[in-house]
Amino acid sequence: MVRIAIDCMGGDFGLPVTLPASVQVAEDYPEVHFLLVGDKTQIETALKSAKPSRLSQFTVVHAEESIQMDDSIEVALRRKRKSSMHLALLAVKEQQADACVSAGNTGALMAVARFILKTLDGIDRPAIASAIPNQLGKGTTVLDLGANVDCTPEHLLQFALMGSALSQAIDGIPEPKVGLLNIGSEAIKGNDVVKKTGDLLQSAPINFIGNVEGDDIFKGTANVVVCDGFVGNVLLKSVEGLAKMISKKIKENFLSSLYNKFAALIARPVLSKFRDEVDNRRYNGAALLGLRGVVFKSHGSADILAFRCAIERAKRAVESQLLDKTVLTIQQMTHLHQETNQNNNNILS
Amino acid sequence: MVRIAIDCMGGDFGLPVTLPASVQVAEDYPEVHFLLVGDKTQIETALKSAKPSRLSQFTVVHAEESIQMDDSIEVALRRKRKSSMHLALLAVKEQQADACVSAGNTGALMAVARFILKTLDGIDRPAIASAIPNQLGKGTTVLDLGANVDCTPEHLLQFALMGSALSQAIDGIPEPKVGLLNIGSEAIKGNDVVKKTGDLLQSAPINFIGNVEGDDIFKGTANVVVCDGFVGNVLLKSVEGLAKMISKKIKENFLSSLYNKFAALIARPVLSKFRDEVDNRRYNGAALLGLRGVVFKSHGSADILAFRCAIERAKRAVESQLLDKTVLTIQQMTHLHQETNQNNNNILS
Repeated sequence: MVRIAIDCMGGDFGLPVTLPASVQVAEDYPEVHFLLVGDKTQIETALKSAKPSRLSQFTVVHAEESIQMDDSIEVALRRKRKSSMHLALLAVKEQQADACVSAGNTGALMAVARFILKTLDGIDRPAIASAIPNQLGKGTTVLDLGANVDCTPEHLLQFALMGSALSQAIDGIPEPKVGLLNIGSEAIKGNDVVKKTGDLLQSAPINFIGNVEGDDIFKGTANVVVCDGFVGNVLLKSVEGLAKMISKKIKENFLSSLYNKFAALIARPVLSKFRDEVDNRRYNGAALLGLRGVVFKSHGSADILAFRCAIERAKRAVESQLLDKTVLTIQQMTHLHQETNQNNNNILS
Repeated sequence: MVRIAIDCMGGDFGLPVTLPASVQVAEDYPEVHFLLVGDKTQIETALKSAKPSRLSQFTVVHAEESIQMDDSIEVALRRKRKSSMHLALLAVKEQQADACVSAGNTGALMAVARFILKTLDGIDRPAIASAIPNQLGKGTTVLDLGANVDCTPEHLLQFALMGSALSQAIDGIPEPKVGLLNIGSEAIKGNDVVKKTGDLLQSAPINFIGNVEGDDIFKGTANVVVCDGFVGNVLLKSVEGLAKMISKKIKENFLSSLYNKFAALIARPVLSKFRDEVDNRRYNGAALLGLRGVVFKSHGSADILAFRCAIERAKRAVESQLLDKTVLTIQQMTHLHQETNQNNNNILS
């Protein structure tokens, strides 16, 4: 059994998205149990009208308040301790759930998750990792996407370890290829932090393939791409912006005349296949890594399909023991470090 | 008259692209004079077969060697001083040309241009600026795109001044809106350097509109977006990578069956209009800013149309006095600084 706590009130839409998505997953996977956290009356009404086949797959947990998308981190963290987000995370902490999924404000979710769950030993800062669709029809996992600015090489090393464990768990790849995001050979290669990180990654217990560039994310050169949160967030927002612009332009052009509308009709099957292939809803669900618990963050504006994907990612992470894999990778690293220090001491003595 | 020195041998294709592009521009603009720099015999043969209407628009300057795309900066700078790139830049330095256009290796071009032309007073580091197509059908100027990693707030301030002058000159906007690339309000706002840069830009003699995010580049929120060269290069390569992936997927899907090929035929007019709208060849031509001369860098793999666009940008920069505008903006800044210091001294005394 996989037990997933849903922050039902989070995101731009709240219950009308989170509840049907949960019910759909429950229908497909009888082994999943949901803790639906939020306003009890509202949830029960919505659940009744959704008519799930097995009501026993759901437990409703009442939360008397919810965190709004524009609530500050301070408010989310200190003043709304009875929010659906807090209680969903608390369920993970108290081992009533194996994972938490929320579409709430990223900053708030990271702060509250860190406060409630605490970070894993050997991890200084949790990171946000998400898959970006590549031309191989798979996802390239990129981290950090905005939780950390001003990272040290040690932070980036930790991101690489956690990203590798995530890709093992979610993509089922035994030794994911890990690349360090850098800039072209044309310019001076990388900034100071990235250069030092490259050295650290060489001796880490991961399949480090060296530097990669921005376009490698879409080529699928690496399974995991590591960068600091400032760069990752700019990258994510930029590619989202371009994708939106292109889809808008395609639509506008196909609607611009009677002939073009006819062309759109003829081209619909191929256009919708294309849309499915690059549909980033299928990749919704960013992992908050480095915490003592599995937490997935859905896009705030996720629709039912997208939120469903986020739940399924959380489910896969639990089933494939993401947390154990992460802890193991970090332990291997620590062990390697100790060995190196031991050897250095031997040489010195 | 506008005199443009062309590094005819630079880029992935050299003469077969640079020469026809120059001839096309010469045909359209009788007021442009070209200094065609490279292998004299080859250029003269190519020029003869291109049959320009007015041969008087061209002067051939012989260069006995050329810089290859994979030559190191060291080789380009020290060992190939008689290359077409060197001589084209020298023509600008010696006021035989008003601008230089090269499709050669970016790192080499920046190093040689800096060596030959030197930087402007008040500028610590030259930057690379290019326009990225936005959904308003215009270009958002982004800089730096990779010349500088590890920038200080003062460097970013200088980029903002130069970018504003470039947009004035090329886009013809009197007070271009300048945005500072930052990450969302969701996370901690920006890294240390960006926070300090924000303060500096507030009091700069430009139309600073505050922070912008990655997707604002495509929305056209600002005319100029400022970032360090590491972030800018990652951004540029990422969006190029996504654009390539999308265009490949569209092509693949339209060729995947007989029906889809038929659909492609019907949809061709609308697809090609769409392609034109987002065609980044029309935005080819990155400005190397902060030098004592106008230098434009074309994409290495530019075709004739794209190289033509780079030449036209250089022409527009000369005609609209980019260099004077840049110097003026920097002087205003210096003047403001002196005033502030003066006031501070008065307060202290």
